[in-house]
Amino acid sequence: MQSEPGSESRRPVHSSDPRTGEPGVQVAVESGPEQVDRAVRAAAAAAPALADRAVRAALLRAAADRLAAAAEEVIAAADAETALGVPRLTGELARTTYQLRSFAEQVEQGAFLDVAIDRADPALGRPDLRRMKVPLGVVAVFAASNFPLAFSVPGGDTASALAAGCPVVVKAHPDHPATSELCARLVREAAAGLGLPEDVLGLLHGFDAGPELVRHPLVAAVGFTGSVRGGRALHDIAAARPRPIPFHGELGSLNPVVVTERAAAERAAEIGAGLAGSFTLGSGQFCVKPGLVLIPAGAGELEQEVVTAAAKAATGPLLDPRMRAAFLAGVQDRAARPGVQTLLAAGPADTAPLAVTPGVLAVAAAELSEELLEECFGPVTLLVRYRDADELDGVLGQLSGNLTATVHLAEDERGPEAVALLGRLLPLAGRLVVDGWPTGVAVAPAMHHGGPYPASTSTSTSVGATAIERWLRPVSYQNTPPELLPAELHDTNPLGVPQRIN
Amino acid sequence: MQSEPGSESRRPVHSSDPRTGEPGVQVAVESGPEQVDRAVRAAAAAAPALADRAVRAALLRAAADRLAAAAEEVIAAADAETALGVPRLTGELARTTYQLRSFAEQVEQGAFLDVAIDRADPALGRPDLRRMKVPLGVVAVFAASNFPLAFSVPGGDTASALAAGCPVVVKAHPDHPATSELCARLVREAAAGLGLPEDVLGLLHGFDAGPELVRHPLVAAVGFTGSVRGGRALHDIAAARPRPIPFHGELGSLNPVVVTERAAAERAAEIGAGLAGSFTLGSGQFCVKPGLVLIPAGAGELEQEVVTAAAKAATGPLLDPRMRAAFLAGVQDRAARPGVQTLLAAGPADTAPLAVTPGVLAVAAAELSEELLEECFGPVTLLVRYRDADELDGVLGQLSGNLTATVHLAEDERGPEAVALLGRLLPLAGRLVVDGWPTGVAVAPAMHHGGPYPASTSTSTSVGATAIERWLRPVSYQNTPPELLPAELHDTNPLGVPQRIN
Repeated sequence: MQSEPGSESRRPVHSSDPRTGEPGVQVAVESGPEQVDRAVRAAAAAAPALADRAVRAALLRAAADRLAAAAEEVIAAADAETALGVPRLTGELARTTYQLRSFAEQVEQGAFLDVAIDRADPALGRPDLRRMKVPLGVVAVFAASNFPLAFSVPGGDTASALAAGCPVVVKAHPDHPATSELCARLVREAAAGLGLPEDVLGLLHGFDAGPELVRHPLVAAVGFTGSVRGGRALHDIAAARPRPIPFHGELGSLNPVVVTERAAAERAAEIGAGLAGSFTLGSGQFCVKPGLVLIPAGAGELEQEVVTAAAKAATGPLLDPRMRAAFLAGVQDRAARPGVQTLLAAGPADTAPLAVTPGVLAVAAAELSEELLEECFGPVTLLVRYRDADELDGVLGQLSGNLTATVHLAEDERGPEAVALLGRLLPLAGRLVVDGWPTGVAVAPAMHHGGPYPASTSTSTSVGATAIERWLRPVSYQNTPPELLPAELHDTNPLGVPQRIN
Repeated sequence: MQSEPGSESRRPVHSSDPRTGEPGVQVAVESGPEQVDRAVRAAAAAAPALADRAVRAALLRAAADRLAAAAEEVIAAADAETALGVPRLTGELARTTYQLRSFAEQVEQGAFLDVAIDRADPALGRPDLRRMKVPLGVVAVFAASNFPLAFSVPGGDTASALAAGCPVVVKAHPDHPATSELCARLVREAAAGLGLPEDVLGLLHGFDAGPELVRHPLVAAVGFTGSVRGGRALHDIAAARPRPIPFHGELGSLNPVVVTERAAAERAAEIGAGLAGSFTLGSGQFCVKPGLVLIPAGAGELEQEVVTAAAKAATGPLLDPRMRAAFLAGVQDRAARPGVQTLLAAGPADTAPLAVTPGVLAVAAAELSEELLEECFGPVTLLVRYRDADELDGVLGQLSGNLTATVHLAEDERGPEAVALLGRLLPLAGRLVVDGWPTGVAVAPAMHHGGPYPASTSTSTSVGATAIERWLRPVSYQNTPPELLPAELHDTNPLGVPQRIN
């Protein structure tokens, strides 16, 4: 990460400010194949230092402490590169340190080890068997554009991988290289402060470092948050390796919402305002943004409420010029499709070079084409007007997998039809939301952040306690004397981990 | 599975007897693309019938009952097609029905649902979240040659998938089509007897049905037991689908054994006899057969004991002519490699056309070549003589992933060196065996049957209780009123499943 001999020949990495659109100072150089190899080898060499759970817990807490102590600097760096604003980034940093501390607790408790002990049973001819989970090895993490902290260098993938005992090499997102450098330095300093090798966390820059990293023989698993196109390419590389590795990718999600006829009639203002708030939150740059909203045909009041509320919503600059261009082109392209009506025209905003205003489009269910079912990052949503249950069902049948699916019901719609509707949404998503909004992903044991492809490339979650399971594999010890067993598998259970016995 | 219009144009499937090598009666025809499509659609349509856990438990028990009631017929069919012998097949059937009943119990208990409930916490801004696991959809199962029951139609993959609530379509193994037909009929009759659609289990024949099945849009996951070549091809198809699906494949394993110098000196006769028994068991046709044994150079007594015991071992016919030819060619090829010594020559046996006698090869660690590290199915093992710890370490460094790794120690070898040796084996296998043998895979909660690639293409187990996890995905319900929640997520917990609350 320091400048090094030979780095002059590699391309510089600049920090850009979305409020101006101008590239700022150079903060790094792109990582070449040599840098990737060196980072992965250094991480692999650091793995034994993470063998002890108490050490991992201490590292996670020390990282959280250093991030919190440097909050002002971290938030300023992230704001300068993402324009997400100090309040949002303050919340995101709090979430990030909370995640690190939660995983520290989880590591100490040891339930994730899933210890099972079956003592020898000569009657069944069964030998003594003791199983626990062990870390997979070096984890490659691809940082997300839209969460410079919570889904980037010190984010959930990194926290859960370190908690599992896996060293991490992060591929920084080009939208926030300076924030990435700063956060990586803080985590590495936290390691060094505990006498651990700094290389428990490595950092790489540059597009080409991504495939190189996924191909590296010592990389054992990948965590990815990003686009369908980029994620799918890396997924395919992971699967095509001589030794394929798990690829846990979060790729894309429309997050459909269904509003029943009675809900639209009963709560037009509330639902309209809620939807506008949800799809414009963070300038529509959330993976759980509701991008497709099925509303009854003729729900003019609801449509009006959405438009009125969205028109008043404060949206800021998008994350980078490419994203802004893709948003404006994406909205324009959708608006030009047959049958699509523009209820609120998205466009450039004059508050900042990369700022945009939100858009609301509408189309009849019968005219919904495949192109309208692709995620459009940014503050836009598509209202799809259905005339009856068959049309609603037909649209749901066209959808791919999603992180979330939401339904808005009338207050007394709790009967078989509502149950059936929820059952219809179940195959489409990893989280079902009733009378609420998908934005806001709580970090909690009962959270699942994932869903059928392309929402996720695996059945795992990237948020919440069970995210740690992605970086572990079980190992059984057969007929192994206590002196050779990990302490977690001893009958005396000196570390007090949960054990399922016989 | 009944003969049907158009079936004349498809190739017949014959049942063959390994004791004669002759093809017997025709039992089916190969499945074409239409049959694959029909089977998968029928299975998908049957999925709702498996929604209720009590129904699934009843189905698993009814299937076990019918298999047990037809034991004589099932064992005779399997023996006629595999020549594995009545005692072994009686044991395998018992294991198969035990697996079905174990999963029935597990389904009823509901711990696998991994229910977590986080009640709303307004102070944290957290909505009510309730998570449980739900079935993935239709599971494709590829039956194994070497276990016509326990890893085939009514085997662990099928039992765990049905337990999870997933209908199953099995691709029969060509070595036992009649057994497959019989077992499928019994399971389907068990379903019909409970008023369930028979198509909760479908059966296909023929090589081409395999890729077709993995490509089918309605197939949601795959369970495979077989060769590296076949498994890798199907894995790659699963990963390349428009919607990639989980592929849980068990592909191949050398199952290395390390005998320390002191163990060889102390227990030569015991280890020699144990090894011979293990690698010739079931004619060496187990996925956990110890195929590579690291012994100290100069352990002549141990080598002699292995050879003497192996020469006396009773091995039967191999499963099919192709396998026998591959075994004989494989042994010959290895024996001809530089530095390889034949201690006991494998060859054809005169007891039956497909019968062979066991072989023992030996080579110095320094002369171990990559070709010698490929699994050779059948009763042969390779002794690798290491001169010191460095040579031992060098050989271990050349190994791919395995289902098991075994170590034989002297009685008082329990110190840091033994711990380090076990630590060295840990990255290489999913099960570590001390002073025992890997053959014999107990069905128990603490069992793990899987391992780093190519032992397995995933981090899951295909044996034991946690095998059910392969066919499930988590779903969170947010802010969902009790009337719309599955009973398992109710505060009142009417079904008494384990719930982790807050």
